[in-house]
Amino acid sequence: MTKTNPGNYFEDFQLGQVLRHATPRTITEGDVALYTAFTGSRFAVTSSDEVARAAGLARSPVDPLLVFHMVFGKSVPDISLNAVANLGYADGRFLAPVYPGDTVASSSEVIGLKENSNRKTGVVYVRTTGVNQRGEAVLSYVRWVMVRKKDEAAVIAAEATPTLPQAVAASDLVLPEGLDFKGYDFTLGGSPHAFEDYEIGEKIDHIDGMAIEEGEHALATRLYQNTAKVHFNQFERAKDPSGRRLVYGGVVISTARGLAFNGLENAGLILAINGGRHVNPYFAGGTIFAWSQVLDKADLG
Amino acid sequence: MTKTNPGNYFEDFQLGQVLRHATPRTITEGDVALYTAFTGSRFAVTSSDEVARAAGLARSPVDPLLVFHMVFGKSVPDISLNAVANLGYADGRFLAPVYPGDTVASSSEVIGLKENSNRKTGVVYVRTTGVNQRGEAVLSYVRWVMVRKKDEAAVIAAEATPTLPQAVAASDLVLPEGLDFKGYDFTLGGSPHAFEDYEIGEKIDHIDGMAIEEGEHALATRLYQNTAKVHFNQFERAKDPSGRRLVYGGVVISTARGLAFNGLENAGLILAINGGRHVNPYFAGGTIFAWSQVLDKADLG
Amino acid sequence: MTKTNPGNYFEDFQLGQVLRHATPRTITEGDVALYTAFTGSRFAVTSSDEVARAAGLARSPVDPLLVFHMVFGKSVPDISLNAVANLGYADGRFLAPVYPGDTVASSSEVIGLKENSNRKTGVVYVRTTGVNQRGEAVLSYVRWVMVRKKDEAAVIAAEATPTLPQAVAASDLVLPEGLDFKGYDFTLGGSPHAFEDYEIGEKIDHIDGMAIEEGEHALATRLYQNTAKVHFNQFERAKDPSGRRLVYGGVVISTARGLAFNGLENAGLILAINGGRHVNPYFAGGTIFAWSQVLDKADLG
Repeated sequence: MTKTNPGNYFEDFQLGQVLRHATPRTITEGDVALYTAFTGSRFAVTSSDEVARAAGLARSPVDPLLVFHMVFGKSVPDISLNAVANLGYADGRFLAPVYPGDTVASSSEVIGLKENSNRKTGVVYVRTTGVNQRGEAVLSYVRWVMVRKKDEAAVIAAEATPTLPQAVAASDLVLPEGLDFKGYDFTLGGSPHAFEDYEIGEKIDHIDGMAIEEGEHALATRLYQNTAKVHFNQFERAKDPSGRRLVYGGVVISTARGLAFNGLENAGLILAINGGRHVNPYFAGGTIFAWSQVLDKADLG
Repeated sequence: MTKTNPGNYFEDFQLGQVLRHATPRTITEGDVALYTAFTGSRFAVTSSDEVARAAGLARSPVDPLLVFHMVFGKSVPDISLNAVANLGYADGRFLAPVYPGDTVASSSEVIGLKENSNRKTGVVYVRTTGVNQRGEAVLSYVRWVMVRKKDEAAVIAAEATPTLPQAVAASDLVLPEGLDFKGYDFTLGGSPHAFEDYEIGEKIDHIDGMAIEEGEHALATRLYQNTAKVHFNQFERAKDPSGRRLVYGGVVISTARGLAFNGLENAGLILAINGGRHVNPYFAGGTIFAWSQVLDKADLG
Repeated sequence: MTKTNPGNYFEDFQLGQVLRHATPRTITEGDVALYTAFTGSRFAVTSSDEVARAAGLARSPVDPLLVFHMVFGKSVPDISLNAVANLGYADGRFLAPVYPGDTVASSSEVIGLKENSNRKTGVVYVRTTGVNQRGEAVLSYVRWVMVRKKDEAAVIAAEATPTLPQAVAASDLVLPEGLDFKGYDFTLGGSPHAFEDYEIGEKIDHIDGMAIEEGEHALATRLYQNTAKVHFNQFERAKDPSGRRLVYGGVVISTARGLAFNGLENAGLILAINGGRHVNPYFAGGTIFAWSQVLDKADLG
């Protein structure tokens, strides 16, 4: 009997199957400091306990994207160890703030399966949920990945493609309990621009650029306990045409989010991820730039 | 209206102006651990809560230079985003210890302005002050930077060059309350050399050398939330004759301080920064060495 | 009088001598987060406070290997600053769990001395012990290093070679007080494989590979406050045939341990280090792989 984890192949997944992922994770001030070192994040509400308290929270919550990476990382050994490509995300919602000291565990439900016509691969859709130590959901999102079949001849019992929202409805957004920005100090926030200053359709070039080295993305991806081999195994990667390790897409997302401070200073807490795709690989040493467009607005009061 | 921060140009500053900087920062055990990883610092009083308690403190204070970098980082977007060069520091004093969990905010007063004869740039002198969540000053220092003018024709209303002390007077040094080295254990400190063993004029070659990689200084500088583009934007920097990112001078200062343990083992707490200049740029990969000279001594009892 | 530490030469050591090492170290959540970033460790009991509590512990203990590196690091300035080679380890036992907030100090007793026939070097055997702030031993191990003589003519008073166990006896293993895996959740652990599934002689190829960059090992080794020059001083190392910094062997051990999760998922706490040698140097950029063999089993109840 082999002791190592072979991962799941496309034919191993079944509609409705729930996979409880391993390695629950206590997120600490140490993780938060590292996340700042990885991203340079300057959003006041996650940078200063005092700003967070003034906004009605117990202290600075863990950056929602750090929570995302932690919850995501747990799902890799079960969902995407044999993935060819991580295709997309949708309907991501942060359901409760996570504070240092909280422990996050994660599980995924298979909500879609679609074999490709070549019968060598298929697309697996999962809804992944992160819960804290009290069993409260803190994050829920859908992702879909193309996964290899182990046996081309294997027959897939039932297939289905889930219907996913283009965007999370404003009525589905969950604000942290007690959140109140009445006394918010825009100077400490870093910009005078408030909700009403942003217009639908507006594009913001965040100007700044950030290069990430091999050592940096590897530190981040290990911190997230994401074990996908493409990020670490240089010996294997040397055989790839790129010859390079692939950077975990979440590192790019977080870098872009860090850059987006310059123009979105007072947008301190991500409530939802409408959707996303990794449209091109990023290799260490390249400089990442970011821009944002306001697609819609919803006044939450 | 552009949403991104253009930074202040030379003509935007006025004598007496006070700029409250954004992004207050709760400094945690995570930041302290990273600072040790960046510097290898071994000073017993900042390494061991037990040593700190034996010296009359609540626990290990945050390394004063880490406090400096945090306070400094906040000032960059307002003071030096359009800087040509960071010219110098003077009259820096640490006024109260910072402990993990404290939140530091910072502000700067413009105390000097001197336009250069080419009218393209000018020197801005600021006194920057860091305060904790109780409003107590923890650090105050002067720095001066050469800043670009946006409009060469702009007329500067009032100019002045501040008089700065060559060194902080011993009578102006502030010891952490309760500090008492009576029971100090020199073996745990790492050397038998005490105050009375150091002579004015004595030079100490700290012997050891330390190379810093791109990924390391970028992690540190992001941790300090210092956003100066020259440290991160490799795409832009490729157009510079050096072709390289500039390493934040504070990284070099802290590396030198870490190396200085070897010969200054029992000098665990910096009380003041008499002055300093970045006399040459440092690029990643070079090996940093350090030496110290005892310029003066003051017995604080 | 020179102020810098020259380190001890072979003739400076005496049988029975006890060296109290400098720089006690409070180990924090920040150190733990960094260790995860360095290794990607996923063992549930050190990753999740909840899993640790379910196993009868106060919270997640600090990874024993992180404790090892901290205790080891302290011994370098006294034991191996003038070492030619770090030859081996034996009889290492973790005697009490270390929790974030604990402060570890370390000391070494010289238990063996053997001059080499060339009279230029000799082998020093030390038993190094780490203790916490309550004076309780947390770790004890033997290591031996080849150390240069300063003066070839120096006569060594007394020599002895200690007898070391091939392996730590099961009866000498110390379990953390209160440890109870009765309610252990193997799904959260990451594998169904339990004690009874491993057979003596069984070999496990851990499959995954991990590359480490210069910036990464330097961060780790500085965090451990290990000051051996070969890890940091690139200027000096450029004169070595390799032209490269040597990676601290402990970085390789911890990387291998992180990789070993894949196949040893539920072996969350190292109780002892039977022995070990660094059989080849590792240079940054290489990909580390790992395999394990079950040499023996002992049912601790």
